[in-house]
Amino acid sequence: ARIGIGEAVLCAGKSEVQIRAIVEQVLARGARCLLTRLEPELAASLPMLDYHAASRTGFVGENVACPDAAEICIVTAGTSDAGVAHEAARTLAFHGAASTMIFDVGVAGLHRLVARLPEISAHRVVILVAGMDAALASVVAGQVSSVVIGVPTSTGYGAARGGETALSAMLASCAAGLSVVNIDNGFGAACVALRHLQRFKD
Amino acid sequence: ARIGIGEAVLCAGKSEVQIRAIVEQVLARGARCLLTRLEPELAASLPMLDYHAASRTGFVGENVACPDAAEICIVTAGTSDAGVAHEAARTLAFHGAASTMIFDVGVAGLHRLVARLPEISAHRVVILVAGMDAALASVVAGQVSSVVIGVPTSTGYGAARGGETALSAMLASCAAGLSVVNIDNGFGAACVALRHLQRFKD
Amino acid sequence: ARIGIGEAVLCAGKSEVQIRAIVEQVLARGARCLLTRLEPELAASLPMLDYHAASRTGFVGENVACPDAAEICIVTAGTSDAGVAHEAARTLAFHGAASTMIFDVGVAGLHRLVARLPEISAHRVVILVAGMDAALASVVAGQVSSVVIGVPTSTGYGAARGGETALSAMLASCAAGLSVVNIDNGFGAACVALRHLQRFKD
Amino acid sequence: ARIGIGEAVLCAGKSEVQIRAIVEQVLARGARCLLTRLEPELAASLPMLDYHAASRTGFVGENVACPDAAEICIVTAGTSDAGVAHEAARTLAFHGAASTMIFDVGVAGLHRLVARLPEISAHRVVILVAGMDAALASVVAGQVSSVVIGVPTSTGYGAARGGETALSAMLASCAAGLSVVNIDNGFGAACVALRHLQRFKD
Amino acid sequence: ARIGIGEAVLCAGKSEVQIRAIVEQVLARGARCLLTRLEPELAASLPMLDYHAASRTGFVGENVACPDAAEICIVTAGTSDAGVAHEAARTLAFHGAASTMIFDVGVAGLHRLVARLPEISAHRVVILVAGMDAALASVVAGQVSSVVIGVPTSTGYGAARGGETALSAMLASCAAGLSVVNIDNGFGAACVALRHLQRFKD
Amino acid sequence: ARIGIGEAVLCAGKSEVQIRAIVEQVLARGARCLLTRLEPELAASLPMLDYHAASRTGFVGENVACPDAAEICIVTAGTSDAGVAHEAARTLAFHGAASTMIFDVGVAGLHRLVARLPEISAHRVVILVAGMDAALASVVAGQVSSVVIGVPTSTGYGAARGGETALSAMLASCAAGLSVVNIDNGFGAACVALRHLQRFKD
Amino acid sequence: ARIGIGEAVLCAGKSEVQIRAIVEQVLARGARCLLTRLEPELAASLPMLDYHAASRTGFVGENVACPDAAEICIVTAGTSDAGVAHEAARTLAFHGAASTMIFDVGVAGLHRLVARLPEISAHRVVILVAGMDAALASVVAGQVSSVVIGVPTSTGYGAARGGETALSAMLASCAAGLSVVNIDNGFGAACVALRHLQRFKD
Amino acid sequence: ARIGIGEAVLCAGKSEVQIRAIVEQVLARGARCLLTRLEPELAASLPMLDYHAASRTGFVGENVACPDAAEICIVTAGTSDAGVAHEAARTLAFHGAASTMIFDVGVAGLHRLVARLPEISAHRVVILVAGMDAALASVVAGQVSSVVIGVPTSTGYGAARGGETALSAMLASCAAGLSVVNIDNGFGAACVALRHLQRFKD
Ligand SMILES: Nc1ncnc2c1ncn2[C@@H]1O[C@H](COP(=O)(O)O)[C@@H](O)[C@H]1O
Ligand SMILES: Nc1ncnc2c1ncn2[C@@H]1O[C@H](COP(=O)(O)O)[C@@H](O)[C@H]1O
Ligand SMILES: Nc1ncnc2c1ncn2[C@@H]1O[C@H](COP(=O)(O)O)[C@@H](O)[C@H]1O
Ligand SMILES: Nc1ncnc2c1ncn2[C@@H]1O[C@H](COP(=O)(O)O)[C@@H](O)[C@H]1O
Ligand SMILES: [Mg+2]
Ligand SMILES: [Mg+2]
Ligand SMILES: [Mg+2]
Ligand SMILES: [Mg+2]
Ligand SMILES: [Mg+2]
Ligand SMILES: [Mg+2]
Ligand SMILES: [Mg+2]
Ligand SMILES: [Mg+2]
Repeated sequence: ARIGIGEAVLCAGKSEVQIRAIVEQVLARGARCLLTRLEPELAASLPMLDYHAASRTGFVGENVACPDAAEICIVTAGTSDAGVAHEAARTLAFHGAASTMIFDVGVAGLHRLVARLPEISAHRVVILVAGMDAALASVVAGQVSSVVIGVPTSTGYGAARGGETALSAMLASCAAGLSVVNIDNGFGAACVALRHLQRFKD
Repeated sequence: ARIGIGEAVLCAGKSEVQIRAIVEQVLARGARCLLTRLEPELAASLPMLDYHAASRTGFVGENVACPDAAEICIVTAGTSDAGVAHEAARTLAFHGAASTMIFDVGVAGLHRLVARLPEISAHRVVILVAGMDAALASVVAGQVSSVVIGVPTSTGYGAARGGETALSAMLASCAAGLSVVNIDNGFGAACVALRHLQRFKD
Repeated sequence: ARIGIGEAVLCAGKSEVQIRAIVEQVLARGARCLLTRLEPELAASLPMLDYHAASRTGFVGENVACPDAAEICIVTAGTSDAGVAHEAARTLAFHGAASTMIFDVGVAGLHRLVARLPEISAHRVVILVAGMDAALASVVAGQVSSVVIGVPTSTGYGAARGGETALSAMLASCAAGLSVVNIDNGFGAACVALRHLQRFKD
Repeated sequence: ARIGIGEAVLCAGKSEVQIRAIVEQVLARGARCLLTRLEPELAASLPMLDYHAASRTGFVGENVACPDAAEICIVTAGTSDAGVAHEAARTLAFHGAASTMIFDVGVAGLHRLVARLPEISAHRVVILVAGMDAALASVVAGQVSSVVIGVPTSTGYGAARGGETALSAMLASCAAGLSVVNIDNGFGAACVALRHLQRFKD
Repeated sequence: ARIGIGEAVLCAGKSEVQIRAIVEQVLARGARCLLTRLEPELAASLPMLDYHAASRTGFVGENVACPDAAEICIVTAGTSDAGVAHEAARTLAFHGAASTMIFDVGVAGLHRLVARLPEISAHRVVILVAGMDAALASVVAGQVSSVVIGVPTSTGYGAARGGETALSAMLASCAAGLSVVNIDNGFGAACVALRHLQRFKD
Repeated sequence: ARIGIGEAVLCAGKSEVQIRAIVEQVLARGARCLLTRLEPELAASLPMLDYHAASRTGFVGENVACPDAAEICIVTAGTSDAGVAHEAARTLAFHGAASTMIFDVGVAGLHRLVARLPEISAHRVVILVAGMDAALASVVAGQVSSVVIGVPTSTGYGAARGGETALSAMLASCAAGLSVVNIDNGFGAACVALRHLQRFKD
Repeated sequence: ARIGIGEAVLCAGKSEVQIRAIVEQVLARGARCLLTRLEPELAASLPMLDYHAASRTGFVGENVACPDAAEICIVTAGTSDAGVAHEAARTLAFHGAASTMIFDVGVAGLHRLVARLPEISAHRVVILVAGMDAALASVVAGQVSSVVIGVPTSTGYGAARGGETALSAMLASCAAGLSVVNIDNGFGAACVALRHLQRFKD
Repeated sequence: ARIGIGEAVLCAGKSEVQIRAIVEQVLARGARCLLTRLEPELAASLPMLDYHAASRTGFVGENVACPDAAEICIVTAGTSDAGVAHEAARTLAFHGAASTMIFDVGVAGLHRLVARLPEISAHRVVILVAGMDAALASVVAGQVSSVVIGVPTSTGYGAARGGETALSAMLASCAAGLSVVNIDNGFGAACVALRHLQRFKD
């Protein structure tokens, strides 16, 4: 593709008929395509997909190989952030990029996070997935020299406001050089990481 | 006073004439009073005050002695949070309570904060003053067993939204048992601490 | 636990499989755990829990004894605030702390509230649970010298805005020293109370 | 006038030239007119006005007599609400209606308010002027059978949000039959009171 | 009742068991009670109620007679506002007050509205029920000398924002002396009218 | 110009030096240009402009003639909306289009508005300039078959929210076929009218 | 009709009984009527309608003929915007106006959009249907001299905020003379177009 | 520095005394420091700075050399976005990184933008500075394979909402892999670019 990112379809709000038509047309062209936000019930009727439930993603067409060594690390604050992290990881895998995943190291348990910082900072790009107050993003971005991308999530209730608080907190973070994507947008964060990788390899 | 907290006057929005009248009436009664948000220009014309510029507070009437040992610790994330911290400290001093102040230990420099945690946690009550993403509050509240009170501040721009982001982030914090007062309300946080001291004396 | 508050799991958004796994792992460790926001349908399939429907909480592991005398009073404005109050009471019970509950004393019936003020003020800590305009919190905080913690609730419609109005009203309250937790966060208010108790008992 | 309310001009945003033109044209017609939100500096250059600084109002034309007995009571929560209360009182006086004013009986000092309730409830219409959490309105509306009109004010900072919190709290009040006008709109509350009076007298 | 308004129960958010208990307790006391926001499915199992589906209200206990002549007029802008208007009419009927209802005279068909103005203005109190831009309220309040109470409704989509736009438009209305209650609060508007009737009887 | 609308410069936020440079460069090219939101103090130092204070606009270059007959009518609700109306009229004049202006016919004085409807509806395009509740726009759009363009203005206070309420009310209007431009954007409304004229010439 | 736009009924929130009554009454009068936001399940029980599922619209009464040549072009950014575009097209067809539809030319694939610009600009009126960032509207409005009407849609998640972002972006667009209707309001945009056409043809 | 980004001080809200103290302390340490948001009046009294007015930045200490070839391109939509762009360029220069600046290529003049796309896409990293609807960011991000960082600016009025609309539009952009920093945060965007350069050196 012109900008180096493959075709992707956001399935939320599309009917089974529409998604099936897209998939068949992609296969007929011998092309590849990534489906995101595809619910398991819909996926069940599309057996030609390589479907992954935790991320709600499906691959259409041939898979590509990933290298062993990951240049990208995906870190989550809490259990509920896992789905968004998996969406990022699968988007990377679809493009042949490996990633390391580190779960559940929110700042409420600071020592667990500090213990993992050397491993995190060994990656060129770090994707930080966190909801509620999103303090994880500020803490990590202040400790590593990697490219750091924040993904606010919609976990939490009340003043968490469906992810708006995590989003604003990441944008207002005092850690220099943290950039941010839309709420729950694991796909988008992976695309940012892919842009960093592809322009380096040119 | 009935609830154990002395008379206090919020001077913002009051004229010099109004403030002078209040001060003179308090002195005539032989009483005491705390003035908050009193600008230096106004204070200059009220020489009977014990005025403190960094906190914009004035004491009317006799001062009371403070014990040497502080049971309350006031911690700030950045330089711009100092005024709010001083308002808290002066409110405590007005009521005869000592406090320890620790400045500028925001999470962007995590090691500086971690180094101070033992000192912070040695206090019964910790007041956490932070703006922008307010990540300091979540990190400290997750590390100490003290009473922890968050004061969001209006520092920052754009997505900091005049303190709304810090306020929401503290309310949505994943650290258990962090309570919060209004934006820039150093006075209120000190009053929470005073309620603890007065009801938790042996 | 490091900060004196036991392990707690927010079940909202977790599947039965995930919750069962957590419960079994806690029991295997011989540990204890508090489950919050656990719907009755899910609880029905987890008979090893000490489940309490009105609070949607479950205790995993051995219960601890509570003293007879309550140091904490939980007060609600209306009938719909009871669930949040029960969440606070059960969180306290899980940690071995007794509480007194006083229901339905909103300010629309001021005499009923005034009649209970002596009983309320006899407690060291008062948790005020109120939705809509949350006027209860300002009235009580202005009458007692106890530590006062406000829990705004999401009851009401229209301008109640799902609890945002109660939250803002408590934060802007003219009663000095009222601190606030997230909307509907009975768990959090109890944790604040526990911090006050534990630092006094040290 | 057709709807029983006299001509009124909101001076905020109008130049001295524009206001002078209006005043002269009203006087030329031998008519009467009420000016609101007129700053003292502007009023100084318009000596033909009956100007009242605390309310920022001016009367143009002949004054009308007021009866001795007031049917309307105006109550404020705090000192900063006085200007709005005066705007209401002057709007009533312009229309020949007397009012009783009771200042500074916010709920933080509940006993002072309770002491005045009999006097307040002796009036047919009660105008409640309060900012911040506006708890005064709920408490009084729950205690008197009079017509009760809430005027939220823009006093306070942070979560007071320029009067939005007081406005929402009054709208969401659990006291039945409290109606509300715009933030700081003392003029409007007086007009509501006048409508109640004029339809009774027909 | 002390404030002249009968007992009322907001059924939204209460279970059948809770509502049945309230009803039975009221009947046992030989008292009366108004149930609002009671869904038809719940009402079906409570045959002792005088239930009215369009208003979702139920009367418990003896009904009271209404006079023939209505002093209150309820006006709606569109078809979807009828339910809120009926809630107001039934609240009045519960208290023995008659009302005239005029439906579907929104300003988009101005001539239809103008034709009804004489009838509307013959009432002492006018309740204006309108959603979306709520222009009906400004137009009528500018044409009649009656007491005018606006009830914004949650009809419409997008920029109607669930009634927030209608609410703000009524509050900002240029028609003098329009007061407002919460979104969809037909009950509250009726209570304002009842306060007028009870304090403005000869 | 490609889209048929001349060069226009928004002067708000530009320095005198920058504006002078633009003007001189336009004149050097022998071209024409419209300056908007140009404060009188700045205009005073630019004598080569055809400046119009009430609209804060300046014409650079040769003026073009306007036909006598106006196809566009600009209507305002209140006195404070005049500046925005003038910005629209001058933008039209800059492009050689005549307009009729009708001031101060807000719905609070419905008869004055109704009296002008025949004149208004004789124009092909009607620009409706109104703040606060913007009810004028709904009423007129429901009465004329012309193209109707709403310009919400930032007049009013409190719930008027700087024009947001007028904007939302126009968007949610029940009158079919009312389109809207940004708050205070008289320039934009005129450009909509110009697009109509240029594409709907015989 | 007086303003040249036919009778239309918004079915959202109306019951089958209510809609059937409206339809039968229209047919009995020998009149015509457009139903919008009518769900397929409801339409299935109303076989006398000319129903169109993708637009959720139904025609009641005789259809009118459309000319072959379209003067209106409807353009969408993405697949999910199609329903709103169809609502606009059907509203036009109901009034006898033809339209050209161009789907899925969002700016992410700029070359596809640029290729269609000559065709788009050949129409007198262009309706631009776009959600999320709505960049399509600014780009097209800057390239064509036609009348341009923006319809923001509620597609997208997180910061798309149900169409609010698209709405604000269109209103703040730097392209001169773009006017806007409510979120998802295809009907309204068509009515704006009809007003442009009907005043030209007079 | 640990994360590869030099010391930076946000001068907004700091007094001359505070800034002078910081500068002198940095010089005494023989260190370097970047001052941002430093107003010209303050800078005038600090002659030891390398001050740049358009960006409001000052360099303290030795300057570092920049390479000739720029790997980073900074693009602005309008004239008013220049200050933010300069802040980014100076932050890069402070760290020894060259940048290309392309001004005033907003999408309203699409051909001018398209003409510059080859030059833009030749850079590894592209910083897109745009206010109002921020459509520039979506268009460019859809055309280049570079790392793309959006900086929303606070230019515009009304629905531009001080940069909130540009921010939300960038976050909701349909172009894949666009990440975003805070409103007007040219400093932050430059830091994102620096993280890329430092981790993607060969
Ligand atoms: N009802 C509740 N409200 C707010 N926080 C809670 C609640 N229940 C548990 N928590 C906290 O939320 C955290 C959630 O962690 P997790 O179970 O990993 O999603 C726990 O560590 C608790 O401190
Ligand atoms: N539809 C309604 N809208 C607003 N308030 C109501 C409504 N119905 C009843 N109320 C009031 O809400 C209070 C609710 O009390 P409760 O039933 O204890 O939750 C009652 O005392 C009534 O004054
Ligand atoms: N008052 C105004 N409101 C909205 N847009 C305007 C106004 N005046 C000029 N413009 C437009 O704003 C653009 C601003 O461009 P610039 O002068 O480069 O900042 C111009 O191309 C005009 O189309
Ligand atoms: N223009 C700016 N925008 C955002 N952050 C900045 C800016 N300038 C400096 N900073 C950061 O803000 C922090 C402010 O720290 P302080 O000077 O202690 O208030 C610094 O460490 C920088 O990383
Ligand atoms: Mg966890
Ligand atoms: Mg610092
Ligand atoms: Mg009750
Ligand atoms: Mg007071
Ligand atoms: Mg209708
Ligand atoms: Mg006027
Ligand atoms: Mg597409
Ligand atoms: Mg430009």
